[in-house]
Amino acid sequence: MKRELKVAVMGYGTVGRGVCEILCEKRELLAARSDVDEVSLQYVLDIKDLTGEPVEALWVRSVDTIVSDPSVNVVVETMGGTEPAFTFCMKCLNAGKNVITSNKQLVAEKGEALFQAARANNVSFRFGAAVCGGIPVLRTTVYGLAANRMRSFCGILNGTTNFILSKMINENMSFATALKLAQENGYAEADPAADVDGHDACRKTAILCAIMFGGHVYPDEISTEGISKITLEDVAYVNDFGGKIKLLGRGKQLEDGSVCAMVSPAVIRNDSMLANVEGVYNAVLLHGDKIGTVMLYGQGAGKDATASAVVADILDCGRKPGFDTAYSWEAADKKRMADPDEQTLRLYVRGFANQENTLSELRESFGSLTVLHRENAPGNEIAFITDEDKEKALTEQLRQVKSFAAASVIRLVSET
Amino acid sequence: MKRELKVAVMGYGTVGRGVCEILCEKRELLAARSDVDEVSLQYVLDIKDLTGEPVEALWVRSVDTIVSDPSVNVVVETMGGTEPAFTFCMKCLNAGKNVITSNKQLVAEKGEALFQAARANNVSFRFGAAVCGGIPVLRTTVYGLAANRMRSFCGILNGTTNFILSKMINENMSFATALKLAQENGYAEADPAADVDGHDACRKTAILCAIMFGGHVYPDEISTEGISKITLEDVAYVNDFGGKIKLLGRGKQLEDGSVCAMVSPAVIRNDSMLANVEGVYNAVLLHGDKIGTVMLYGQGAGKDATASAVVADILDCGRKPGFDTAYSWEAADKKRMADPDEQTLRLYVRGFANQENTLSELRESFGSLTVLHRENAPGNEIAFITDEDKEKALTEQLRQVKSFAAASVIRLVSET
Repeated sequence: MKRELKVAVMGYGTVGRGVCEILCEKRELLAARSDVDEVSLQYVLDIKDLTGEPVEALWVRSVDTIVSDPSVNVVVETMGGTEPAFTFCMKCLNAGKNVITSNKQLVAEKGEALFQAARANNVSFRFGAAVCGGIPVLRTTVYGLAANRMRSFCGILNGTTNFILSKMINENMSFATALKLAQENGYAEADPAADVDGHDACRKTAILCAIMFGGHVYPDEISTEGISKITLEDVAYVNDFGGKIKLLGRGKQLEDGSVCAMVSPAVIRNDSMLANVEGVYNAVLLHGDKIGTVMLYGQGAGKDATASAVVADILDCGRKPGFDTAYSWEAADKKRMADPDEQTLRLYVRGFANQENTLSELRESFGSLTVLHRENAPGNEIAFITDEDKEKALTEQLRQVKSFAAASVIRLVSET
Repeated sequence: MKRELKVAVMGYGTVGRGVCEILCEKRELLAARSDVDEVSLQYVLDIKDLTGEPVEALWVRSVDTIVSDPSVNVVVETMGGTEPAFTFCMKCLNAGKNVITSNKQLVAEKGEALFQAARANNVSFRFGAAVCGGIPVLRTTVYGLAANRMRSFCGILNGTTNFILSKMINENMSFATALKLAQENGYAEADPAADVDGHDACRKTAILCAIMFGGHVYPDEISTEGISKITLEDVAYVNDFGGKIKLLGRGKQLEDGSVCAMVSPAVIRNDSMLANVEGVYNAVLLHGDKIGTVMLYGQGAGKDATASAVVADILDCGRKPGFDTAYSWEAADKKRMADPDEQTLRLYVRGFANQENTLSELRESFGSLTVLHRENAPGNEIAFITDEDKEKALTEQLRQVKSFAAASVIRLVSET
């Protein structure tokens, strides 16, 4: 019997277009690599008029056309957002079709229900492109590191904010100017909040926590802080320390099984593997009990890179049909989130002194600290890095120095 | 019917021991992740007496015990060397057993014959641990980047030489002292030639070329140069340039389908993603037509990291039984190796002048060059970096300046 992958793509935006291009350009190569006789594109669903597009002949307007065609066995969802993506994916899964998505919001918010439907129908539900676009982070965790208990991860998960921070660090550009440039280059939306405030990185952090530690993690369970408060003054002081400011998504499973996760700006050292990750690139460090540290780096967004990850997932449907328990997680109630305040770390602090002896008071409160310098600083500006302690204790020590008004507090992350 | 992976391990050295430990420690976890009911260790083959070892009860002395037990469906080869590893693996494949190996020499020299036997018997032959130990480079190329035509790769593929170069760069340690330290730490063999002269990196380069571009590449087809001629003087000059010297394995498929591959020391810039790869760590940059650049980083050797990769391959035998054409390559005669001399690049050169006007002569011959500096250099020492040209042309331009005696010539690699 001829083994075929007959694919429908829902959503002809940037990523959907990229997927269609690869499927049409590389039919023979893909069939060989997926261990099937043929891979073909059957339908492209969009509310937009696709007249004049290369896929015009495949355009359909209703998901029911796809659902009711028994020959379609793989459906790609690249629409974005939770609805109607969720309803459409559920229909396809319940019709016995494998579903591949690049939609991180869908997976982070509705993963449990989708896994349940996929399991019940014994079909694949894969979403490699939802975390770091083209970088095969999820499949590496699930398959390549399958011999490991995963302990933690730490990564630059959002290209837009990394582009902005790179411009601030390397070209002394202000946050506002760098954001404008990101928008002009198409890296940031007109409303940049999802990127700049950390929500996009938060969704990826939630998915990584779930796949690595088991148990659904919802985005609103993760303490999330963006980069809009980072100033060029902070960039200069951190440079004096021999470091850089990056927006990191992090997760760790503690000894008691609870999970500590957060998204926030962080100071990392220049000799860290994450330090040279510039512009729109992403990178993630994964820590497992047997492998130690592995890092993956590449393009976390963009048409072709993201489509590359979607197509890899499509091909897996040929190689390993049916539901893959390893590429899923349990319901949320098995998980307990730990308080980030209880973690031990160092803090970068910048602020202003109201008294002559404020620095002495800070030294007294913290025991010891590393004072930083920058050119043309106002006389009453003080910036320093604390020694290591629980974040809660450091915050309290800072609060006790009444003559110091903190303007910036950034975590120093050493496991990078 | 109960689905089981019943495993025999041949060779109870460092890696074999690591594999046995994971298989015994994590039975339930592994079964769940491999989509089978049970994963168990059945036999451990070694010529050494294993009395007193935790696997004592499973010790066998003849491969025929394994071959003749029909219940064994996965055999792990961690003996090293080509014989008897090759004969044993062929026996197992021909008895219809899946074979997993960590043995890069075996794959680089005998891959074709092993694939043939695996294909004929429709069993798996996997070797993820043979390239960069624990880092999932091969499976990422084959599965994660399956939508791509791979264009090139460039990597730090040998931990021992990277450890030595890191010590030279960061601690101004001589090559001889750093090598001795590597030997004391167990990173280098008593006879360090396989590492230091680049042969180990060459075998990995051959395997990467074959899996990325198709067609077997034999190690002796790859121009290979080690690090024993690198001096602290070179390290100092390259530091002045803002770079580091690393041993790189590289491969590229040219427009005409031919493959250009080499192993040699290379100058890379400090802002390159490979620059912060220190000590025994490995990293590989992969370039594909859709994904752009991806980098993988981690421990390229060591008991647990390498065993992690072997076990991941074992679990694939449960998930996807049978021969996997995508994880193999064609016979060698489809491949033509390109001449590295024809590639365009810049060269770092250090040497000694015999005349007052040697530097002017060099400038005249090369057109333009970047002169480098170091402290306490002899008056007649000159070091510089050329502009970009074909290596053949640059070598000829250097030869023409009779008053200059070159002591070191190192390629500058920019795609890192």
